[in-house]
Amino acid sequence: MFESAEIGHSIDKDTFRKMMPALREALLDVQYDLKEKADFPVLILIHGFDGAGRGETMNLINEWLDPRLIHTVAFDKPNDEARARPWMWRYWNELPATGRIGMFFGSYYSDTLFERVFNRSDRDAFDRQIFDILRFERMLTLDGAVVLKFWFHLSRDKQKQRLKTLEQDPATSWRVTKTDWEHYERYDKIRKYGEHMLRLTNTAHAPWIVIDGEDANYRSLTVANTILEAIRNRLGQPMLSTDRVEAPPLLAPIDNKLVLDTLELEQKLDKASYQKKLDQLQGRLNKLTRDPRFGNHSLVLAFEGNDAAGKGGSIRRITQALDARRYRVVPVAAPTQEEKAKPWLWRFWRHLPGKGGITIFDRSWYGRVLVERVEGFAAEADWMRAYYEINDFEHQLTENGAIVLKFWLAISKDEQLARFKGREETGFKRFKITDEDWRNRDKWDLYRQAVSDMVDRTSTSKVPWTLVEANNKYFARIKILSTICDALEARLSE
Amino acid sequence: MFESAEIGHSIDKDTFRKMMPALREALLDVQYDLKEKADFPVLILIHGFDGAGRGETMNLINEWLDPRLIHTVAFDKPNDEARARPWMWRYWNELPATGRIGMFFGSYYSDTLFERVFNRSDRDAFDRQIFDILRFERMLTLDGAVVLKFWFHLSRDKQKQRLKTLEQDPATSWRVTKTDWEHYERYDKIRKYGEHMLRLTNTAHAPWIVIDGEDANYRSLTVANTILEAIRNRLGQPMLSTDRVEAPPLLAPIDNKLVLDTLELEQKLDKASYQKKLDQLQGRLNKLTRDPRFGNHSLVLAFEGNDAAGKGGSIRRITQALDARRYRVVPVAAPTQEEKAKPWLWRFWRHLPGKGGITIFDRSWYGRVLVERVEGFAAEADWMRAYYEINDFEHQLTENGAIVLKFWLAISKDEQLARFKGREETGFKRFKITDEDWRNRDKWDLYRQAVSDMVDRTSTSKVPWTLVEANNKYFARIKILSTICDALEARLSE
Repeated sequence: MFESAEIGHSIDKDTFRKMMPALREALLDVQYDLKEKADFPVLILIHGFDGAGRGETMNLINEWLDPRLIHTVAFDKPNDEARARPWMWRYWNELPATGRIGMFFGSYYSDTLFERVFNRSDRDAFDRQIFDILRFERMLTLDGAVVLKFWFHLSRDKQKQRLKTLEQDPATSWRVTKTDWEHYERYDKIRKYGEHMLRLTNTAHAPWIVIDGEDANYRSLTVANTILEAIRNRLGQPMLSTDRVEAPPLLAPIDNKLVLDTLELEQKLDKASYQKKLDQLQGRLNKLTRDPRFGNHSLVLAFEGNDAAGKGGSIRRITQALDARRYRVVPVAAPTQEEKAKPWLWRFWRHLPGKGGITIFDRSWYGRVLVERVEGFAAEADWMRAYYEINDFEHQLTENGAIVLKFWLAISKDEQLARFKGREETGFKRFKITDEDWRNRDKWDLYRQAVSDMVDRTSTSKVPWTLVEANNKYFARIKILSTICDALEARLSE
Repeated sequence: MFESAEIGHSIDKDTFRKMMPALREALLDVQYDLKEKADFPVLILIHGFDGAGRGETMNLINEWLDPRLIHTVAFDKPNDEARARPWMWRYWNELPATGRIGMFFGSYYSDTLFERVFNRSDRDAFDRQIFDILRFERMLTLDGAVVLKFWFHLSRDKQKQRLKTLEQDPATSWRVTKTDWEHYERYDKIRKYGEHMLRLTNTAHAPWIVIDGEDANYRSLTVANTILEAIRNRLGQPMLSTDRVEAPPLLAPIDNKLVLDTLELEQKLDKASYQKKLDQLQGRLNKLTRDPRFGNHSLVLAFEGNDAAGKGGSIRRITQALDARRYRVVPVAAPTQEEKAKPWLWRFWRHLPGKGGITIFDRSWYGRVLVERVEGFAAEADWMRAYYEINDFEHQLTENGAIVLKFWLAISKDEQLARFKGREETGFKRFKITDEDWRNRDKWDLYRQAVSDMVDRTSTSKVPWTLVEANNKYFARIKILSTICDALEARLSE
């Protein structure tokens, strides 16, 4: 979930100065529209790592918007009044009225997260609180509220650096408290439990917006733009029924830098090293899948990637290492008539391996948020909620002991062109290239955005996406095989 | 939740024979419409107590409808295949296709309930499974499915009687298995945990339909009519958006017998006994609220009832016994401008008592499903989901230690008329009678239905409704006071 917030987003001063005035004006306009015309409130939640700019953002919103119409509340530990009542009581009390913006600095999410981080709640109590939150936010959004949940992110190193910088400057040293350092010590736990909490509450109607907190310009413009577009979107689409929830729009990052752009696609491996490593890894993989401990697990692999990125070849290098009775490769194409008559995930559920089994999906359930999104085969509301449904699906798999790995094979546009031409010229490969492949190529940028949103919303520490630099097939295959072996080894020795 | 299913519903043979043919024909028609025109499936779940007619109902549906278009599955314990996969796998596999009816005899609800009943899951694991179910059904209904969940009910005595009757008749003795008696031994646990499960999964889009299982004619007609109206309703209202869920309609019982009809309103108490009991109970109540253990609890009372049923007088008899610093009476009228601008429950959250405190609501959050429903102040979708929101609200209260009691004061239509006239004639009471009261009286039957639905959907063992026979004020007040004292005593000594 945090991948895109760690690739180093930034907006330079000039761009910032150029974009800012129009954005501020638009924000004020929309705020007055909200006041005059709207029958719904806006709730903004500010969360994330210390030092990632949460306080600055809160001040900024109050500065750029009309603060008289913003109800800002900072929640700390509950007082006696609050402790004597159900834990959600103090959040209920501070809800914004229709036509207004409420901004919570810290919220029910902080209570939930820090009780877990400081071991005051166990796994079950944690999930129970998350369930309370889900019902609460469902009520809010069904009631019409626009709920925007920001998570300001910093990597561990960046957080340390940032806290030190703030501390060293006498003008800002007051910003860094003992609590900040206590939280820093627990960075890994906050990240781990935070991710779990974000995943389970990342609903289509009240999604999390994860923001790289390092660069102030990027951060400020992103927050302002997100608020602007979410309110605009809702003002333009009055609710048809009170039982209908509009999801805020998915926006491209304001600096147009996506997670795929950070890959170094040209990484190479020569044939001799490849052959040697391939033998080693296939041997290792074979042994791991015959390990008695694997009998309590199963392995589910999903392959996605650009056309001609080498999915098939990679899959063959895996199956070569496996006992044929244990695995199954499921090629995923357009759904059949029977499959279309069932909920969309049905065709993947039916192919799940049992304990000790392996299923390799050549293209997968991610088609819902890739091709079906880009081609418009699924309505926006449907693919928007698919992220949650996918996370839920994969969660049920891992709860049952499955090891789930997902690979995106990325090649450059030039490399793809070369491969397409090669396929057309080689007789026995001609079947592999169709008009559709050429049409998909025209939608390169739409796919680029869809892949980025997919990684942001479905990559978790338990079920991570592995982005594979695949311009060189040898390099790609070895990266895939070693990722699988490492993951198996780690899970089997848990 | 089970109140209405224990008042003894029945349909006589002649009525049954008269209604049946038209109903069967209509059902077949609607089934073909479903097949020809619908882009959604229907999922029917059959649950409830052994001996309450679940098997007979399943056969009946297959007999009255075209069984070729019904996919009937009886789920027993999971086999090896299923055990090797996530627990929802086998239910995914059997989902009906669009245009078809799927009928599950036993389902994910049985797994969940019986693991709890037989102590194989604890409270947290139970809730976690319920949460899995909620996400699953939400996916199904967002996908368009009509989900009908039947709970066939029998009281403990009726179940015993029914199992014995079946056993004694050689023609039906095979129906009663050892498992049935094992379940009977655990009737109370099944009922308790079943109620918890039903309450948490009783959503507006996939509500439970609780049916009195005693009389076969009543049972059969009710099931058939519910299926008919739910499919008809959906066929008539195509989904406007895939993110919109249509709730099936709330139907009046087919014998038009409601829970309010079973009250003996004329129960009396003479003045001398009243005075004596009143003194005793007020003393007892005072002592209970000063008990140190009450400091970990709070008391929340909600009063609803027919106009002129004596709510105010009853509340005064309670407050007379209380320390003025500890309690607060909140009269609930139409929401203020400020309250209207918040989610509808906000105005009740703000008045919640802290530990050791008492809040008495003179009219309450139930206005949402009474006056707002009857007068159309709330849209149907809104008051339909209010049942779930109310249960959630009260659940959060009891989790926090609150003792929550709800009273419906019922008087007969004649008694009301007499009281209205009395008020008009007595100078100092004239303010108590308005045109609105007379208008409400015209809607007597609508309120009667709304009260019944309210009790069915929100009365639980932890937060029960007490229906108070209030034609005689003395009787009513004593019943209320002793209910409060008994509940306090029970909770304080837990």
